[in-house]
Amino acid sequence: MKALVYNGPRDVQVKEMPDAKIEKQTDVLVRITTTNICGSDLHMYEGRTDMESGRILGHENLGEVIAIGKAVDRVKVGDMVCLPFNIGCGFCANCERGLSGYCLTVNPGNAGGAYGFAGMGPYSGGQAELLRVPYGDYNCLVLPDDAREKENDYVMLSDIFPTGFHATELAGVQAGDSVVVYGAGPVGLMAATSAFIKGASQVFVVDTHKDRLKLAEKIGAIAIDDSEGGGVQQVLDLTGGQGADRGCECVGYQCCNMHGKEVPNLTMNNLVQTVKAAGSIGVVGVFIPKDPGGADELAKEGKLAFDFGNFWIKGQRIATGQANVKAYNRSLGKLIHAGKAKPSMIISHELALDQAPEAYENFDKRKNGWTKVILKPGK
Amino acid sequence: MKALVYNGPRDVQVKEMPDAKIEKQTDVLVRITTTNICGSDLHMYEGRTDMESGRILGHENLGEVIAIGKAVDRVKVGDMVCLPFNIGCGFCANCERGLSGYCLTVNPGNAGGAYGFAGMGPYSGGQAELLRVPYGDYNCLVLPDDAREKENDYVMLSDIFPTGFHATELAGVQAGDSVVVYGAGPVGLMAATSAFIKGASQVFVVDTHKDRLKLAEKIGAIAIDDSEGGGVQQVLDLTGGQGADRGCECVGYQCCNMHGKEVPNLTMNNLVQTVKAAGSIGVVGVFIPKDPGGADELAKEGKLAFDFGNFWIKGQRIATGQANVKAYNRSLGKLIHAGKAKPSMIISHELALDQAPEAYENFDKRKNGWTKVILKPGK
Amino acid sequence: MKALVYNGPRDVQVKEMPDAKIEKQTDVLVRITTTNICGSDLHMYEGRTDMESGRILGHENLGEVIAIGKAVDRVKVGDMVCLPFNIGCGFCANCERGLSGYCLTVNPGNAGGAYGFAGMGPYSGGQAELLRVPYGDYNCLVLPDDAREKENDYVMLSDIFPTGFHATELAGVQAGDSVVVYGAGPVGLMAATSAFIKGASQVFVVDTHKDRLKLAEKIGAIAIDDSEGGGVQQVLDLTGGQGADRGCECVGYQCCNMHGKEVPNLTMNNLVQTVKAAGSIGVVGVFIPKDPGGADELAKEGKLAFDFGNFWIKGQRIATGQANVKAYNRSLGKLIHAGKAKPSMIISHELALDQAPEAYENFDKRKNGWTKVILKPGK
Amino acid sequence: MKALVYNGPRDVQVKEMPDAKIEKQTDVLVRITTTNICGSDLHMYEGRTDMESGRILGHENLGEVIAIGKAVDRVKVGDMVCLPFNIGCGFCANCERGLSGYCLTVNPGNAGGAYGFAGMGPYSGGQAELLRVPYGDYNCLVLPDDAREKENDYVMLSDIFPTGFHATELAGVQAGDSVVVYGAGPVGLMAATSAFIKGASQVFVVDTHKDRLKLAEKIGAIAIDDSEGGGVQQVLDLTGGQGADRGCECVGYQCCNMHGKEVPNLTMNNLVQTVKAAGSIGVVGVFIPKDPGGADELAKEGKLAFDFGNFWIKGQRIATGQANVKAYNRSLGKLIHAGKAKPSMIISHELALDQAPEAYENFDKRKNGWTKVILKPGK
Repeated sequence: MKALVYNGPRDVQVKEMPDAKIEKQTDVLVRITTTNICGSDLHMYEGRTDMESGRILGHENLGEVIAIGKAVDRVKVGDMVCLPFNIGCGFCANCERGLSGYCLTVNPGNAGGAYGFAGMGPYSGGQAELLRVPYGDYNCLVLPDDAREKENDYVMLSDIFPTGFHATELAGVQAGDSVVVYGAGPVGLMAATSAFIKGASQVFVVDTHKDRLKLAEKIGAIAIDDSEGGGVQQVLDLTGGQGADRGCECVGYQCCNMHGKEVPNLTMNNLVQTVKAAGSIGVVGVFIPKDPGGADELAKEGKLAFDFGNFWIKGQRIATGQANVKAYNRSLGKLIHAGKAKPSMIISHELALDQAPEAYENFDKRKNGWTKVILKPGK
Repeated sequence: MKALVYNGPRDVQVKEMPDAKIEKQTDVLVRITTTNICGSDLHMYEGRTDMESGRILGHENLGEVIAIGKAVDRVKVGDMVCLPFNIGCGFCANCERGLSGYCLTVNPGNAGGAYGFAGMGPYSGGQAELLRVPYGDYNCLVLPDDAREKENDYVMLSDIFPTGFHATELAGVQAGDSVVVYGAGPVGLMAATSAFIKGASQVFVVDTHKDRLKLAEKIGAIAIDDSEGGGVQQVLDLTGGQGADRGCECVGYQCCNMHGKEVPNLTMNNLVQTVKAAGSIGVVGVFIPKDPGGADELAKEGKLAFDFGNFWIKGQRIATGQANVKAYNRSLGKLIHAGKAKPSMIISHELALDQAPEAYENFDKRKNGWTKVILKPGK
Repeated sequence: MKALVYNGPRDVQVKEMPDAKIEKQTDVLVRITTTNICGSDLHMYEGRTDMESGRILGHENLGEVIAIGKAVDRVKVGDMVCLPFNIGCGFCANCERGLSGYCLTVNPGNAGGAYGFAGMGPYSGGQAELLRVPYGDYNCLVLPDDAREKENDYVMLSDIFPTGFHATELAGVQAGDSVVVYGAGPVGLMAATSAFIKGASQVFVVDTHKDRLKLAEKIGAIAIDDSEGGGVQQVLDLTGGQGADRGCECVGYQCCNMHGKEVPNLTMNNLVQTVKAAGSIGVVGVFIPKDPGGADELAKEGKLAFDFGNFWIKGQRIATGQANVKAYNRSLGKLIHAGKAKPSMIISHELALDQAPEAYENFDKRKNGWTKVILKPGK
Repeated sequence: MKALVYNGPRDVQVKEMPDAKIEKQTDVLVRITTTNICGSDLHMYEGRTDMESGRILGHENLGEVIAIGKAVDRVKVGDMVCLPFNIGCGFCANCERGLSGYCLTVNPGNAGGAYGFAGMGPYSGGQAELLRVPYGDYNCLVLPDDAREKENDYVMLSDIFPTGFHATELAGVQAGDSVVVYGAGPVGLMAATSAFIKGASQVFVVDTHKDRLKLAEKIGAIAIDDSEGGGVQQVLDLTGGQGADRGCECVGYQCCNMHGKEVPNLTMNNLVQTVKAAGSIGVVGVFIPKDPGGADELAKEGKLAFDFGNFWIKGQRIATGQANVKAYNRSLGKLIHAGKAKPSMIISHELALDQAPEAYENFDKRKNGWTKVILKPGK
């Protein structure tokens, strides 16, 4: 099969690889029809992780079931399925409580596994023609009749729509709330979308990229252009000096200031300032325990100079971590099905699998207008 | 009236002050019969805050109502009442949601007020013969018939029992959980007690003071003696390497390592290590936005070198802040009334108000055996 | 002042009454500018309650503060305020937990008080030129700058918008859910609106009145016309035979079948059938302990022949009761302010106070097109 | 293998049956070492269900794994396991949210399956030497090292301890609450135990059997002897006339009044009376949709003459249904392991499997002292 392989920093290639196949009786085999490039793929692409060369990338996957193991009871050949980026077993102490992103089975010694991801187990990614899905009955979201028609919407259920929604869940967004979102990338836009789905009265989206801020406005959010600073003050002014009710971090450890310099604690400390006393903050942007390429000593150790004093005095809360996709994909899928959510609106480029290398390059450079790339392996 | 007055760093004095009195028609006037010295009084005593000299200290207060304003409907003269350390109005946007510790009315421009406390409004403390209680109907917990008999238990409802309980609420402790508590001071012991009240299966209490650890064992907790280091590993070993389900921070920014040196990020980073993936942490130890006397540059700015990378990868949560005492004092009072909780067990010294200066000195030195001091102004 | 007075069954009259005034120092006096007739006013109008003759009706009130008691700190003369229909004290065991609809103070011996309502205390209603508001600081929602411009929206914060929202809270509606609402009256329409605010994917509204069902469709709901029966089957068919995720009862004990006959258990048993296993049901329609005019022996005793067996086997939940308006009015007001909710869309008639008697008569007859009447005492 | 077979009303027999075996690759085969008789077995024993003759009873099972299917990854031969009475798949829309008692897979067309139970699928029970466990990785709770030593405690994790705990969860019991439990049978006693685990200040247990009430007192509860009536008034008197904060129904549709006559609505209407306004009620006693042997017309249709008017006016909540055992068995098991819970205290008789028929007879007659029978098939 054809697949996109990671050779090393900023070097990916589409080449022939052995076909994915059923390896265990609980597996499902999927012919991928849509697979996205994610912002977190770029961490690996840039060589900022310990990703092994030779592995297939891709954790935002959708396709058609073409084979099932003998112990698969629910999923049928021919089903159109969307796969959560995180792989769960369904029966460990975490999965049984719905924490499928922290599965204790699939990546022994760690909590959580994923397709084509550094440190998340040996699973190949889906930027390929075929994908093996472990514990298929647990991991496949079987899509309704309009699966092919709305394929570009449903594929967002694999990661960024649930991840954006997770940000609002972690932040405890409720009807009537004002919400400040840091980051107008795909996840930040999905967080803003999710906040409105839950009845937010106002959503502020802070970024320094004008093309992304335009998308935020298209969603109905108030764009806060921080490209010349002053974003914190703007949010305070718009909230009567109190700060927003809730905040979402959708950037992560590589966040940059207005001069394009990495300042890892920037978004978190700004959130403490721009969220009100007794407010809460959801963090889905990725932060990592060790970053040898980090800007300074603290960054290299995965530490932030965090404004804990203000955080405590304000009595705020932070909840973090990757989304348990299965906690949300079924519900969000119903909103797509009912025509109430259309996450495909953020797609800027729909390309063939062969074009993946150039897509990685442009997306990594945040080239103007490259918001979200989806790949069509079958075409 | 006689009252304990703060003159300046490590200088407090019992002297004659003008009688507290009804100033507004919603006030209640209380003759104090028991008032405690709290660990947070020591921050002021040591001059680590901007407390004004000449003010009366004391925010853990209980006594008898001797006068009420004309607009007081519920509280009656003769009622025995325990006063939450934080003062709320009952009608602002925060109080109406139960966030009485973040009242927007009583300390304009800030969220939260308290008796005799730096930065918490102009209210005099209760280490005195008389105390003015604003918004008396809202702030007084009227005690049942056994108020005088169990006075030393009920007085703990003013602060440390609800604060310890709050730690377990912020941490989300549920029946069957294992819980690690940092700090075996009065609040840490109340957190451990509260964890057991909620059905914790195991509670680990980490400290370096052997006299305090003995009290932790008396409660039924597993004492983790960190006086020679190794506390983190002990907790991991006792939890199968996973860490505890929940963690409580009951120390604050002045936490010290085994050599007695202040290391403000010590307990928080140890909590990230000793709480499991997807676990949660409640922080009731005080952290402050500015600490001119802090050990290093970060500390002076109220920042911690916080292990955010591990925190995020583990998908943990932190909730912080002072306890909304009114959220808990009624329920915890029922447990005292029913004989199911006896927080007075932590009292080491019961003294007359005149002895307060020496009590401050000994408590501040963590003199062996000075766990908790209560004062009896009437005697 | 002029006021609408209840003389007896189906006999109300606008006449001169003594001016409302400040009676206690915590009172606020309001000049009413908008006041609504509510469906629950009709229970009294019809003589199906023990309402005393001579009392002023009206519990959905909005106006301008013209005087305040000496102990009022927050509310100012000149403020435009909307008053929750239920009156709370702010400091009792229920109010302090946000259960302002079950206040233990304002109606001694009962849980809950209201303006101009049978069995809810001695308080006069607001279908009048002036209204006395007890515990003004707690009970007044001070409105923002657009109060007069959006007065017909904000007045709905007094009762039906929070009550409809409460139905969805009691039912636990979450993003993506399908919701079935029984009753397309003002409260049912507000429940449907609220379900969409919270991200419901589908809302079914069941009624037998075609004019009301049209309004439901205008909101975006699927109208289920039960005027010739078959409503239950329609909902089941539209939910794959499973039933909706959540249900809302917005009719109450006087619900009628398709032949116009009162069948008190009709909506509740239909809800058990049309809500899925493990689903939940919120009941804001009024049911009463005794109804001497009830259709049969059970009804007279306030009992229903309730399908408890199916309810239990399906593992469903029911939560009931009047809305604690203060729990929602602030948040819903933000949605009105932000232009995200427009509850005035249900108003069919805007009349002078003098026209109230004819309005009662027409509304009581469910005369076609009389959905919601608001009165303007000042005009 | 030997197994207890249901022949018909009040006719059970221990006889040779074909050995249970691995049928699917996700199955686990268990040699049963302890299996209990449950109160709900009596519904079948008495012929009040449509249980098929020839089936093996028993849904409270514990034993040793002696074989596993090829697709089983977690459970190992030799593991001591306790089996939840309800059987889940782990991957359906309900199981993935933790509603393992309402599994949509194992009993097609219904929500929920169980071992040896009328209407809960074709699964054989465990009152036998061997038991087939479907979806073994999901359904087996693997026990710790002290499994054999505390076997009589751990077996209670199969049903009654989680079911009693579920009652308190459904009722929302929190620290400090007063709780009234109807029924002092095994489940009621476990509900009382669970309420204390969660920090209840007072627990009232209402029953008419003095031997059971004695056990309630042993747990620390206040026994309310209703054998001569007056139970409702006793609870009201002990709660200042307000009623308890929470209530638990642990009796079900066959509840009897003080004269031993079945009155199906008795406990529910008493709960409405003895739980306070805004309180909540958990119902784990079984109620069924059709009961041809019921006392009157309503009972035959599975309906109760329920006091809905008072229920609504008091703003109460009811949550119902069988326990999702997996939601609790792990946590409760930790309490057993830590020595903090000892549910075996309710066992009155430990018998060989061969003695099961006489045990059924005595238990069914509520013979004095026959509280809870456990069977030991291996002995």
